[in-house]
Amino acid sequence: MIGDMGDVPIEHYYQINEAHNDITKFYKQVHNAGVIPLSIGGDHSICLPIFRAIACDQPIGLIHIDAHTDTCDEEMGYKITHGTPFRRAIEAGLLDPKRTIQIGIRGAQNSEEGWNYAQESGIRVIFIEEFMDKGVEAIIREARRIVGKGPTYLTFDIDSIDPAYAPGTGTPEIGGISPYQAQSLLRGLRGLNLVGGDVVEVAPPFDPTGNTALVAATMIFEILCLLVESIEKRK
Amino acid sequence: MIGDMGDVPIEHYYQINEAHNDITKFYKQVHNAGVIPLSIGGDHSICLPIFRAIACDQPIGLIHIDAHTDTCDEEMGYKITHGTPFRRAIEAGLLDPKRTIQIGIRGAQNSEEGWNYAQESGIRVIFIEEFMDKGVEAIIREARRIVGKGPTYLTFDIDSIDPAYAPGTGTPEIGGISPYQAQSLLRGLRGLNLVGGDVVEVAPPFDPTGNTALVAATMIFEILCLLVESIEKRK
Amino acid sequence: MIGDMGDVPIEHYYQINEAHNDITKFYKQVHNAGVIPLSIGGDHSICLPIFRAIACDQPIGLIHIDAHTDTCDEEMGYKITHGTPFRRAIEAGLLDPKRTIQIGIRGAQNSEEGWNYAQESGIRVIFIEEFMDKGVEAIIREARRIVGKGPTYLTFDIDSIDPAYAPGTGTPEIGGISPYQAQSLLRGLRGLNLVGGDVVEVAPPFDPTGNTALVAATMIFEILCLLVESIEKRK
Amino acid sequence: MIGDMGDVPIEHYYQINEAHNDITKFYKQVHNAGVIPLSIGGDHSICLPIFRAIACDQPIGLIHIDAHTDTCDEEMGYKITHGTPFRRAIEAGLLDPKRTIQIGIRGAQNSEEGWNYAQESGIRVIFIEEFMDKGVEAIIREARRIVGKGPTYLTFDIDSIDPAYAPGTGTPEIGGISPYQAQSLLRGLRGLNLVGGDVVEVAPPFDPTGNTALVAATMIFEILCLLVESIEKRK
Amino acid sequence: MIGDMGDVPIEHYYQINEAHNDITKFYKQVHNAGVIPLSIGGDHSICLPIFRAIACDQPIGLIHIDAHTDTCDEEMGYKITHGTPFRRAIEAGLLDPKRTIQIGIRGAQNSEEGWNYAQESGIRVIFIEEFMDKGVEAIIREARRIVGKGPTYLTFDIDSIDPAYAPGTGTPEIGGISPYQAQSLLRGLRGLNLVGGDVVEVAPPFDPTGNTALVAATMIFEILCLLVESIEKRK
Amino acid sequence: MIGDMGDVPIEHYYQINEAHNDITKFYKQVHNAGVIPLSIGGDHSICLPIFRAIACDQPIGLIHIDAHTDTCDEEMGYKITHGTPFRRAIEAGLLDPKRTIQIGIRGAQNSEEGWNYAQESGIRVIFIEEFMDKGVEAIIREARRIVGKGPTYLTFDIDSIDPAYAPGTGTPEIGGISPYQAQSLLRGLRGLNLVGGDVVEVAPPFDPTGNTALVAATMIFEILCLLVESIEKRK
Repeated sequence: MIGDMGDVPIEHYYQINEAHNDITKFYKQVHNAGVIPLSIGGDHSICLPIFRAIACDQPIGLIHIDAHTDTCDEEMGYKITHGTPFRRAIEAGLLDPKRTIQIGIRGAQNSEEGWNYAQESGIRVIFIEEFMDKGVEAIIREARRIVGKGPTYLTFDIDSIDPAYAPGTGTPEIGGISPYQAQSLLRGLRGLNLVGGDVVEVAPPFDPTGNTALVAATMIFEILCLLVESIEKRK
Repeated sequence: MIGDMGDVPIEHYYQINEAHNDITKFYKQVHNAGVIPLSIGGDHSICLPIFRAIACDQPIGLIHIDAHTDTCDEEMGYKITHGTPFRRAIEAGLLDPKRTIQIGIRGAQNSEEGWNYAQESGIRVIFIEEFMDKGVEAIIREARRIVGKGPTYLTFDIDSIDPAYAPGTGTPEIGGISPYQAQSLLRGLRGLNLVGGDVVEVAPPFDPTGNTALVAATMIFEILCLLVESIEKRK
Repeated sequence: MIGDMGDVPIEHYYQINEAHNDITKFYKQVHNAGVIPLSIGGDHSICLPIFRAIACDQPIGLIHIDAHTDTCDEEMGYKITHGTPFRRAIEAGLLDPKRTIQIGIRGAQNSEEGWNYAQESGIRVIFIEEFMDKGVEAIIREARRIVGKGPTYLTFDIDSIDPAYAPGTGTPEIGGISPYQAQSLLRGLRGLNLVGGDVVEVAPPFDPTGNTALVAATMIFEILCLLVESIEKRK
Repeated sequence: MIGDMGDVPIEHYYQINEAHNDITKFYKQVHNAGVIPLSIGGDHSICLPIFRAIACDQPIGLIHIDAHTDTCDEEMGYKITHGTPFRRAIEAGLLDPKRTIQIGIRGAQNSEEGWNYAQESGIRVIFIEEFMDKGVEAIIREARRIVGKGPTYLTFDIDSIDPAYAPGTGTPEIGGISPYQAQSLLRGLRGLNLVGGDVVEVAPPFDPTGNTALVAATMIFEILCLLVESIEKRK
Repeated sequence: MIGDMGDVPIEHYYQINEAHNDITKFYKQVHNAGVIPLSIGGDHSICLPIFRAIACDQPIGLIHIDAHTDTCDEEMGYKITHGTPFRRAIEAGLLDPKRTIQIGIRGAQNSEEGWNYAQESGIRVIFIEEFMDKGVEAIIREARRIVGKGPTYLTFDIDSIDPAYAPGTGTPEIGGISPYQAQSLLRGLRGLNLVGGDVVEVAPPFDPTGNTALVAATMIFEILCLLVESIEKRK
Repeated sequence: MIGDMGDVPIEHYYQINEAHNDITKFYKQVHNAGVIPLSIGGDHSICLPIFRAIACDQPIGLIHIDAHTDTCDEEMGYKITHGTPFRRAIEAGLLDPKRTIQIGIRGAQNSEEGWNYAQESGIRVIFIEEFMDKGVEAIIREARRIVGKGPTYLTFDIDSIDPAYAPGTGTPEIGGISPYQAQSLLRGLRGLNLVGGDVVEVAPPFDPTGNTALVAATMIFEILCLLVESIEKRK
């Protein structure tokens, strides 16, 4: 069954920890109903409460397309932010770093500390230079090798895309991947054992042309196709 | 002495209550040094921690120019938000509602509950219809009558201005006052016993022309003149 | 009962006459169900097919707020366009010119021929100069005098508003009325015998700030209040 | 002789069939004068009336650069629209599908029905995936092979370009070709037997930067060079 | 005769003094041919070389609608800039300060020194406060009284208009006049002995909506009507 | 030592020759202090006064990334403009054309005369076609071969980048290089004997998204890294 769950009900907007509890509560219902969620952000911190709902039985693998690893220890003194979700998820045993790949990493708004944690914890980090040098096909093969047959989540941060194509986001980094490359990459992930997906960090007011929304909607469509096929395969 | 204090140091960005503590801590230093603060927002919630620093000795009066009364009891379940500061301030004995006037109130993003509280607590609420019917001169007289000679704060929400002149704000309400009317209103407040002022709710990304910033800067200048004159008079 | 009918089903997009038939067919259902329609355009030509549905029993009166009279005989050789609906409606006996008032007329995209027809047919035309000289209250009295107690339609072209407030439209004319004046005008029309209303000619792509949509939505809200009260009164 | 014919005189704007007759009438004069037309749209439906003027003696070949095949049977119930011109042209014997190639096809605003018709009628359809996989040089060779030495028309829809480069169009599709690829493709078409060309679907209001117009103007220039050389060669 | 002279030929773009000589040379030809010029800027410095051409026989009077008096002695060390033309013109005996009125003066980008010179030289300066207090009719009477029956030039700086209506200009000042007020003011100047006019300081890239150009074009049209009538009257 | 020199003090804004003298004066101080300058434009003419300060002892080599060669003899009659600096520098013996490479040249706003001068004087001109055909690695090798071990300046015109990524510039040319290609190119220049660098022709008002500034800031960062490494190597 494919359907639209509508907005996630969040009661506690001004306390991120409590808002995360609201999100987890909702996704546990989704998960217990046997539904595979495809979410639209929101900032990247939402992965943490989603993982708490859908990865409570066993750690999941992750294909993470982004300009940033989002594995800092803290941001401006806080542990729970859009720069830290995957570190928190690893610490909580929700995410298996050995089955995690991060693709498209680059730019000035990263911290070395976050990069180091990612690599030291066992995550396979594909910096943009490797992506551009080896090409999409090689990256697809590497992603499939890393995540294998286990349960895997797919998260797509719109800032992985070069900001010429998607200026409507909060931490743009130049020198990114093109929407065509992103589509090719996603299409190469057919047949994986996917347990969820999302597209995050879309901020329409920063884009007077509306292109960002169009790119995001297309990526959501591509991921939806992957999830449906994954569900069919498991039956 | 007139000077620029720079950014208010805020350490706790992700917890509004703690951020407010940071703000109060800073403004207490300002206040203890005998300095009259002129602040640039930020959202309207900043008035509460500022009042905690400068109105701890006695309740202050308020001239509040805005499309909204910001006197709700809560917003999305929270007591401390940009829609509630003046209710919290009245409850805390920081603000004297009998010496408070709210000017320019209108529009769809208000709640009756907030309006009711404002009027029942004794605030003089000037809806936009009264403002337009009676004209700026009459409103000036009413504002001066309400606040009298006691210590008075002046807060200017940019959304009091019609969004044609200042689209760069988060809760625009059409049918507002013009910048010329706002300037005339502010100039009519010379000689009051002012103990602080601010311009809040400016959001540049929503305005591709930059006019919002220009309007805000001019209002800051007008208020600065009022504050300086007020300091001179007290000497 | 107040409700949202959703989009008007139009099957024949590429032939304006047939599209108008689709519109008339839908509005006849609305009219026969005893429902008073409040429509959102679309260009101004939609008034003609709406009138064919709701004014088939007797000619209606009209309060028409616009920069243009829309009473040309033809536009680029065509009889049915957004510049001709009210002339066609008078010819068809759907609109009573003696009970019609046009408010806010001005600008370079008008034709003298349209103005002449309006005035010679008996329409009361309020050019912007008269509007500004006499003020909103006088114009309200004149509008009420013209339409009297008979059934009256209220049509609001967003280009009546000065393009500083509403740039998102196809034939902007500078020197227009402000949203506050428009609100005041609409509120002065309470208690009339209203049989329908609309807001037309909104074109969002021409307005990067979104203000045009906000102004239009507010005018729709104001007219909705008028229609509801009018329905209550007739009961 | 190279010259600017000015605007095509269109008398019947509100009936697409009649407007097409106006266009055909004008282009017959151009054609009879021995002039090779280079047209600037306007929507893609204009190809049909142009073909009626210049392909009346024998069917022409076509190099069609676009995100869409524009070979639907109808759109919203209409046979003559911007989504159907090449199907109508094939049915009318104006266009030889065996000598037609469509390059850059992709995206969500296509219909399978249109794609099927294109391929079943014998058109060579280059989807964006084939374009990106094989590269511009291979596509040039294929285009030259398909159209051969016969009379050939060249039509360039601006939405073939990725909307990051040309947001000013009505049906943008992400994942498109870059302006540099488009220039390379056009330059590879030197020496063909060209009988006309156009650039269509440019809509400036959707692009606040003006880049769309700049891209379009450059493509017109590239096509102009091809047409001039083609005329020289035939002499 | 009414006609379009096209662009003023300027050969020396990088040296303002020489560029001014080019302008004067052209306007002398215009003047000697008995033509009354209506010019479109360009920055406000162009008045000086125009005056050198048309006011060489006797000093002219001036109706100057602007946010700034443009009577500084120098700007960043230069005597010939867009902030100084009317001081230079008075010094050169081209402009009669006793027959000069400046309307709409306001804002932060003025210098007191310029204001003082204007008033001390005998210019009648209407600050925006006086304009708003007394109203357009009173200002028209004052303008007609000041310039009398002698030869008079009319210069309209687009920054006289509030930047909500005309953001496309280099030195916007909030709190300005509305286009409707400007139209009313211009229409009140019928029958004067006008010897030239202009609209200056329009900068389209600062205005994504295009409203500034629309306002400017309308003001040009209003002034054109005044000039034509003035020519007719002199015959 | 790495530090920010602040704005270059320019006293003579209205006379380009004198403004250039101001620039040269400042850079001589920088040069005499043993500091390697990294400058932010401003238009491309600033290279000439900078070269006068830092290349007075011996001619320098140049890596010039741009859409234009900027080697015209004059522009609108002037010898000193943003289209002529490198011709003037060669004539003055400041620039060694044999050790100069220009990369990314293309587009409609060039003149053949400038291209011819560049090539005839011995400059190695890499048109965009060669850049795209051979790829970044080959262009890096060629650049290193041309400039060799002698003192070399690196100038980066933002219009080298395709205007989809950087619309905020005065003479955009479509079909340019991507920011990723530019980063790769710059990173390939490590270890050269660099004596200065700049990024020029950034014009923020033409870009409502802010991407142009982000691209420019990143290129400045990349060049800063190159300069620092070059200084270290020379020690």
